[in-house]
Amino acid sequence: MPVYKAPVTDQMFVLHDVLRIAEQEIPGYADLDRDTTQAILDEAAKLSENVLAPLNPVGDAQGCKLENGVVRTPDGFKDAFDQVRDGGWTALDCDPDYGGQGLPYVVATAVGEMFSSANMAFNMYQGLTHGAYNAIHAHGSEDQKRTYLPKMVSCEWGGTMNLTEPHCGTDLGLIRTKAVPQDDDTYSITGQKIWISAGEHDMCDNIIHLVLAKLPDAPEGTKGISLFIVPKFMVNEDGSLGDRNSLSCGGLEEKMGIHGNATCVMNYDGAKGFLVGEPHKGMRAMFTMMNEARLGVGLQGYAQGAVAYQNALAFAQDRLQGRDVTGTKNPEGPADPIIVHPDVRRNLMDQKSFIEGARAFTYWGAEMIDRSHLAGDADAEGMISLLTPVIKGFLTDKGFETTVLAQQTLGGSGFTREWGLEQFVRDARITMIYEGTNGIQSLDLVGRKLAQDGGKHVMAFFDMVKGFIAENKGTDADIDAQFLEPLKKASKDLQAAGMYFMQNGMKTPNNALSGSYDFMHLFGHVCLGFMWSKMALAAKAGLASGSGDAAFYETKLATGRYYMARQLPMTGTHLARIETGADTVMALDAASF
Amino acid sequence: MPVYKAPVTDQMFVLHDVLRIAEQEIPGYADLDRDTTQAILDEAAKLSENVLAPLNPVGDAQGCKLENGVVRTPDGFKDAFDQVRDGGWTALDCDPDYGGQGLPYVVATAVGEMFSSANMAFNMYQGLTHGAYNAIHAHGSEDQKRTYLPKMVSCEWGGTMNLTEPHCGTDLGLIRTKAVPQDDDTYSITGQKIWISAGEHDMCDNIIHLVLAKLPDAPEGTKGISLFIVPKFMVNEDGSLGDRNSLSCGGLEEKMGIHGNATCVMNYDGAKGFLVGEPHKGMRAMFTMMNEARLGVGLQGYAQGAVAYQNALAFAQDRLQGRDVTGTKNPEGPADPIIVHPDVRRNLMDQKSFIEGARAFTYWGAEMIDRSHLAGDADAEGMISLLTPVIKGFLTDKGFETTVLAQQTLGGSGFTREWGLEQFVRDARITMIYEGTNGIQSLDLVGRKLAQDGGKHVMAFFDMVKGFIAENKGTDADIDAQFLEPLKKASKDLQAAGMYFMQNGMKTPNNALSGSYDFMHLFGHVCLGFMWSKMALAAKAGLASGSGDAAFYETKLATGRYYMARQLPMTGTHLARIETGADTVMALDAASF
Repeated sequence: MPVYKAPVTDQMFVLHDVLRIAEQEIPGYADLDRDTTQAILDEAAKLSENVLAPLNPVGDAQGCKLENGVVRTPDGFKDAFDQVRDGGWTALDCDPDYGGQGLPYVVATAVGEMFSSANMAFNMYQGLTHGAYNAIHAHGSEDQKRTYLPKMVSCEWGGTMNLTEPHCGTDLGLIRTKAVPQDDDTYSITGQKIWISAGEHDMCDNIIHLVLAKLPDAPEGTKGISLFIVPKFMVNEDGSLGDRNSLSCGGLEEKMGIHGNATCVMNYDGAKGFLVGEPHKGMRAMFTMMNEARLGVGLQGYAQGAVAYQNALAFAQDRLQGRDVTGTKNPEGPADPIIVHPDVRRNLMDQKSFIEGARAFTYWGAEMIDRSHLAGDADAEGMISLLTPVIKGFLTDKGFETTVLAQQTLGGSGFTREWGLEQFVRDARITMIYEGTNGIQSLDLVGRKLAQDGGKHVMAFFDMVKGFIAENKGTDADIDAQFLEPLKKASKDLQAAGMYFMQNGMKTPNNALSGSYDFMHLFGHVCLGFMWSKMALAAKAGLASGSGDAAFYETKLATGRYYMARQLPMTGTHLARIETGADTVMALDAASF
Repeated sequence: MPVYKAPVTDQMFVLHDVLRIAEQEIPGYADLDRDTTQAILDEAAKLSENVLAPLNPVGDAQGCKLENGVVRTPDGFKDAFDQVRDGGWTALDCDPDYGGQGLPYVVATAVGEMFSSANMAFNMYQGLTHGAYNAIHAHGSEDQKRTYLPKMVSCEWGGTMNLTEPHCGTDLGLIRTKAVPQDDDTYSITGQKIWISAGEHDMCDNIIHLVLAKLPDAPEGTKGISLFIVPKFMVNEDGSLGDRNSLSCGGLEEKMGIHGNATCVMNYDGAKGFLVGEPHKGMRAMFTMMNEARLGVGLQGYAQGAVAYQNALAFAQDRLQGRDVTGTKNPEGPADPIIVHPDVRRNLMDQKSFIEGARAFTYWGAEMIDRSHLAGDADAEGMISLLTPVIKGFLTDKGFETTVLAQQTLGGSGFTREWGLEQFVRDARITMIYEGTNGIQSLDLVGRKLAQDGGKHVMAFFDMVKGFIAENKGTDADIDAQFLEPLKKASKDLQAAGMYFMQNGMKTPNNALSGSYDFMHLFGHVCLGFMWSKMALAAKAGLASGSGDAAFYETKLATGRYYMARQLPMTGTHLARIETGADTVMALDAASF
């Protein structure tokens, strides 16, 4: 059975040594001293390690079952959900007005990483509820908020997001679900939604569905979509539950992974719904919290990589095969542990250097979201909007790749069920697809975010990196040569790619769109190179201070050097691909394939 | 349900336009005129499309079941196996002295691709039998050959390879299975073997296990391993089946994919065995046919990519989402097919250009094996020995990656069972692991094959590519610029990597071993660039001839241009990684991870 140990020390390093959260002028951050965050993370670690992680293979093996319209979650899920609820974990970053704890999102992100690593399918029940909470909190009426939010904060009630229909997912302008106004200011919702995560299950007393639908007079396309609250059980004036609404789970999807989460076909047959916000403004409402939702998926991607890596490492330190070519390391044993072999190291270092860089990138992103939401900082909002598709796309592609690398460390054992690695691979795979496929992320990045506000945010990004290099160079030769120089080179590749798009993509958009995916990865590498440079400086500062764990800081530096030397050169290939433009990509007729 | 259409036209192009098999001076090749190969491939295509492919999801869903020592294969497998047997497909490239058809291996390879694409788990039952046939054919006594081979050629009896034990896979020197000589010249075999594909099943009357074990006086390590034939049922003098041997299937492995193939724990409890070849020379005997076995796995890798691609393409041509930014392509419909979008194209072209290059590489490898075995050509033997780890490692890594890309084309549908893409991903995953993990392939390449015979074969490879470029350049500006120049550049990267190993790996082996994996991929890209250059020349010749399908040749050229422009630049990153040596890879203590 796979193991999970929450990486609290690494998390603390990012929060306090790198991001220095307690020193940031963001409302609520001043309370986040080391002792406070340590206490929160330690408690979350216990729950993750002792309760959630052991249920992960159980959820995979049992899956969810639909019986007479009721979805049964795997054994132990309900008890565990009670523990998560009772510990107040579902309320962590929610509004105190509705029973939340009001902590910053960056703290919830660190906790979320643990829960996702420990049991991604399980944590989605809460995650989807939180997403629905966010949408109602941002766009619901006062009455709606009072009616639904407190129970959603506590996760006594679940929440879902209903977008996709059989004939459309990416292109939501095509949806057919209808919302017909009734005399009592409610709407009659009719249509079929698919791939609804946590659409029906037995862990909550009620489920609050958020459903995209079209009013009879709706304009064509995405400008004609409205958002509705459609509760499973109607809620009486006094807050008690009333009649069952006319909606049902029509089936569960059989899928590659996240078997512990119920992926439902939802049928709305004249169900009673309540409009959220204005008519025809549903897309905007649904996507207000998109940065946060997509960051959450990027987090899931590297979190699966993180737990997979832990198990790969344990195997590599334990499994005896062959001898170190530079001299026997385990003379008492029949062979040396496989971690002595350079190619096993290469594999482990690829995993480790990605995961730790991804963690810093994600927490930094969460800090920007806090800065935007809590401090009303428009620049932070612009920057995180730019970087969100990179966090989502790059971290899930690489996170999945990391699970595959970890699986490979185990050789044949990695392919078997009992070691658990193959589940991490199967579970991680969905992160590249949902919440907007990674192709869509790259399109969002290149087709929308680059040019947003006149290109202001991407210019700010380049200035930030340039300023960071200028500010820090010349004080430490190692930092200069091993971090700042490679970062500068990678950043130049990114700028060159942006320049190529400017010069070739305006007239011929396909020249830019053909390179969007490579650009997303190029950008991701630059961000991780930036993060590793920041982490290296923090580690150097830690060493210089003479306090703290010197070995920890040295390991951090060595891991960073690996990333800069061995991962960052990918930017050259991505740029080369981008600079070939659309010619070879679009050469064939669709029929010639 | 996924579809499969055998790519006979593409296969014929490689065999006849590129490799020109009918003109090669290899025994048996003169008979391989276009009509003959076309007839064989057409028949194999029917079987693949109509019988094997429809059973692929069945095998995945049902898996194999162990009941009272008997393994039940999925519904329909036995009937299908009878059809494969009755059609003579199992005997294709076997020795006519034992009932084989005596066709060259290159033909069996083309057929094998179809069978693997159609149903990899199913085709393994035959594949393993063929491997055991090969070992006995090469090393068995006349008596052993007469006793076992005819029934193995027809697959009335199956065959297996028993290497791995719970505590060792890669490091076979550690095996514990014992072989104790008996008075009657047989051996008593005792031990446990794991991960034995097709170790027990209900499709054959008998199963001939090849088992690695140690004699009581065996030297330590791999030099003390002997090879034994251990039949499930003893064979009487008259060829009839006698007593059941003391061996049994102790369990089936639950695994990520290839559920239709029984992966068995095999227990040998004083089972009667017969020595194959000389004592202590078992490793050599088992690995005589390694080039062929590993090429077969490389083939499985890209074959899964090939069938996945077909389904991705069908989806991309059918699914309507969004509009072409350069102008609507499907004004009658609610949206355009997603194949209009550049990023979907990029994805499809990555798949297509890899698969077609991989096919040419594999068939070329099969031709070299024929040249070595049938024509006794030592240079061909040396070259294919060099390239075998590249074929196995690169084509399975990229084949798996291709299935993931294809799955991505389908978005959410790719994650569901019903579309079948996720099965291709899960099945392809094993090819990176078995028959020597890809890490081991890279070690074999860099640690052994590069220096083999004084580096003669790698020098011959460089000379061959150089000669090819010199011979063909200057006659067609497109070919020069789009194929030969990039090939030259990539080949130089490969030479530079080899030079780095020479200069830095002799004194410090870890400097070479830390780059072995990147070298394997770098080499793979050069080989595919070489193949695409050859295919481009063949396509140009086809166009010049004025006969044949001009659109087919143009598509081939466009696909090749894509590979050269967008895939080959990866060689630069691989070289950059290699040239960083062991420093960052080996920097951490094993305990510091």
